[in-house]
Amino acid sequence: MTPTHMAGPLFTDLYELTMGASYYAHHMASTATFSLFIRGNHANRNFFVAAGLEDVLKGLAAFRFSKNDIQYLISTDLFSDDYISYLTRLRFSGDVVAMPEGTIFFANEPVLEVTAPIIEAQLIETFVLNTIGLQTMIASKAARCVHAADGRPLIDFSLRRTQGQDAGIKVARSTYLAGFAGTSNVLAGKIYGIPTSGTMAHSYIEAFTSELAAFSAYSDTFPRHAIFLIDTYDTIAGARNAVKVAKAMQKKGNDLMGVRLDSGDMIALSQQVRSIFDDAGLFDVKIFASSGFDEFKIARFLAEGAKIDAFGVGTKVGVSSDAPFLDIVYKIVKFKDRPVKKLSPGKITLAGEKQVFRTTDQTGIYLEDVIGVRDETIPGTLPLLENVMENGKLLHPHPSLGHLRNRFEYNFSLLDDQYKSIQDTAVYPVLLSRRLEKLQNLAVY
Amino acid sequence: MTPTHMAGPLFTDLYELTMGASYYAHHMASTATFSLFIRGNHANRNFFVAAGLEDVLKGLAAFRFSKNDIQYLISTDLFSDDYISYLTRLRFSGDVVAMPEGTIFFANEPVLEVTAPIIEAQLIETFVLNTIGLQTMIASKAARCVHAADGRPLIDFSLRRTQGQDAGIKVARSTYLAGFAGTSNVLAGKIYGIPTSGTMAHSYIEAFTSELAAFSAYSDTFPRHAIFLIDTYDTIAGARNAVKVAKAMQKKGNDLMGVRLDSGDMIALSQQVRSIFDDAGLFDVKIFASSGFDEFKIARFLAEGAKIDAFGVGTKVGVSSDAPFLDIVYKIVKFKDRPVKKLSPGKITLAGEKQVFRTTDQTGIYLEDVIGVRDETIPGTLPLLENVMENGKLLHPHPSLGHLRNRFEYNFSLLDDQYKSIQDTAVYPVLLSRRLEKLQNLAVY
Repeated sequence: MTPTHMAGPLFTDLYELTMGASYYAHHMASTATFSLFIRGNHANRNFFVAAGLEDVLKGLAAFRFSKNDIQYLISTDLFSDDYISYLTRLRFSGDVVAMPEGTIFFANEPVLEVTAPIIEAQLIETFVLNTIGLQTMIASKAARCVHAADGRPLIDFSLRRTQGQDAGIKVARSTYLAGFAGTSNVLAGKIYGIPTSGTMAHSYIEAFTSELAAFSAYSDTFPRHAIFLIDTYDTIAGARNAVKVAKAMQKKGNDLMGVRLDSGDMIALSQQVRSIFDDAGLFDVKIFASSGFDEFKIARFLAEGAKIDAFGVGTKVGVSSDAPFLDIVYKIVKFKDRPVKKLSPGKITLAGEKQVFRTTDQTGIYLEDVIGVRDETIPGTLPLLENVMENGKLLHPHPSLGHLRNRFEYNFSLLDDQYKSIQDTAVYPVLLSRRLEKLQNLAVY
Repeated sequence: MTPTHMAGPLFTDLYELTMGASYYAHHMASTATFSLFIRGNHANRNFFVAAGLEDVLKGLAAFRFSKNDIQYLISTDLFSDDYISYLTRLRFSGDVVAMPEGTIFFANEPVLEVTAPIIEAQLIETFVLNTIGLQTMIASKAARCVHAADGRPLIDFSLRRTQGQDAGIKVARSTYLAGFAGTSNVLAGKIYGIPTSGTMAHSYIEAFTSELAAFSAYSDTFPRHAIFLIDTYDTIAGARNAVKVAKAMQKKGNDLMGVRLDSGDMIALSQQVRSIFDDAGLFDVKIFASSGFDEFKIARFLAEGAKIDAFGVGTKVGVSSDAPFLDIVYKIVKFKDRPVKKLSPGKITLAGEKQVFRTTDQTGIYLEDVIGVRDETIPGTLPLLENVMENGKLLHPHPSLGHLRNRFEYNFSLLDDQYKSIQDTAVYPVLLSRRLEKLQNLAVY
């Protein structure tokens, strides 16, 4: 969905509505707190990048069942007239604390907590999990690529292979937030103002009688934005054709922006193509590469001496292919005044309303986090969860995407390289405060 | 996006628009044919289930740039006034042949071919790939689960973890098409009329002072639809509590529908829970299980004697976690009157407009497919690609989802079990016709 087309409150699992019906029938209107966090044990994910909050808050602010929704619910014959009437009037009236988008966080840390009448807190579960889950997963994957690329620009090329239209738009937003330079996705360009870029497809080359004719035609149409795809027939011959057209462009005062490699042994080819351009005095022609890049392939290519100036990053990041879902959950941690937790094997929850306190060194570098009780204070630390919604009202305007991107970039500079490594060895220390530990012993099981 | 909220023609990679601009500037308005197919070498995917055509055809029929879209394109400063004016008037005017949704097909077979003026055929690429790619991927994964479950009902529980909202809706549709019994996804229930079902969450149990009180309250609200989640504290104690409440329900003339297991050693637990219910004379109480099921886990559980009557299938199918993207491509195969193909290493395309001819035995069982030239006839075979759109006009109304589901079920019964096996050994024979082979030699590179 685009931001103007939120799915609304029927974007939910049926059990949220049936549990709500039972709470309603039993007059259980007390306040509950639910905590959203990622469970541990994600291979290749030493850290996460919080993303998706803007969509969550927009969804909560707009939360209401349409007439059409209500008619559908009546048609299921599951719900009492009283409950249907309650749903018809329902607005989200709760409080939300959350880490701002672009915050670096770790497994088991609450990234968002909702405190609301229990039916409301329950009904939004599916939407909140889906929204934060997707965007955080993609931003986290993208940040790893940005680190691996070591300053080289990355462009999101994933739209044709993302899991649906909403994902396509959100992947563009999440990768840009995490430091990508732009996207091929035109709709995301329109919605979010993300810079768009693109080259040409093999079909374009094939539609002309020769590669040279295709390059020449493209340079006529886009004399200042031309990037030639040179691997349709033979990459080296393609590079030579690109040189010819680049020379012709120079006579008209234009510079070829770059060429793109998309197949073959791109490490060796990039070196050969670089030589061909350098030998022709075309030092400023950039070499773009695409085809199956992710943080692992980018790192390997650069380590092995690829002469690549920028990467088109597609499918593997667009679906987070090595970890296509996060073990993200939304668990009740408090009901009325009692802390609550669950004991199912392997699925432990931290009871109580919480805060995450970050300790840094004098230069701001992150040292360790302590998960504590919401209302405690730990001197010299930075609390990461902020009040973002009270009584269903947004407390601040949404920051611009550019602002979030800058914040992420700054935050990321404060995370020690050992935690960014794709070798995936160092574990950032996350502790529990004494007060939170004590509370666990008090919690109702 | 819901079907009423198609993203429109800006859901595209920028290069489609820039190539279009260059074609337009060079008066290249000739007809091209593009072929959509899945490249080979997908582990664990011996067959695919065609899905997504309805959304593709709706998108093509509605293809037009809004005023808002055009304003955005003008703002990029990339395009000539003439081209912008052309885009403003543009409608999709091409022809489409496609396999109906629910068709079983194989790698390298064209599942859809578009013949249209080259700019139009190019501009729809990203949308067509994204739409068919997601839905075919999910339907194919779901069919494997249906086979593994050997007649037991499967319910889609994936909504909280799908990659975005559009995926959530399309996963419900695609899994239902491929034989799932229903979904937890209420919005998909409303949009597609898919049966919805659900149980309760751990949070529901925890909101009461005891598990027994929670079960009892739920049975009051849903005396005929109660499925109790019994693993919050201890599954065996939970089963005993469920028996108590089931007995109380019987006194009021109601039957407990079932219980759900979600953690622990569910094979052993399911056997113990079955005994507890059978010993209490509650033979009709069904045991549902959820938590990480896919075709592999379902098959293993049943092989090891789990007493499970139905499965809630979530994340792993909702994101197709073992293969979260298909290597699906849309390649030019004909331009003007010449067959076209590409030679990039490892990325070979079959030139020409094609048809897929299926040979069956006398009982209808699929024996082999031949990819041939569109206008050839191969006696005794069934052509799989049908004319679905001509000159931009839909040729037939969209079949109902129920109809598609029945068709898939029938088709799937004609696929030999060796190709459905999750052992993934047998390869279904797909050959090329002599005419198609000859055409490859004529193709322009």
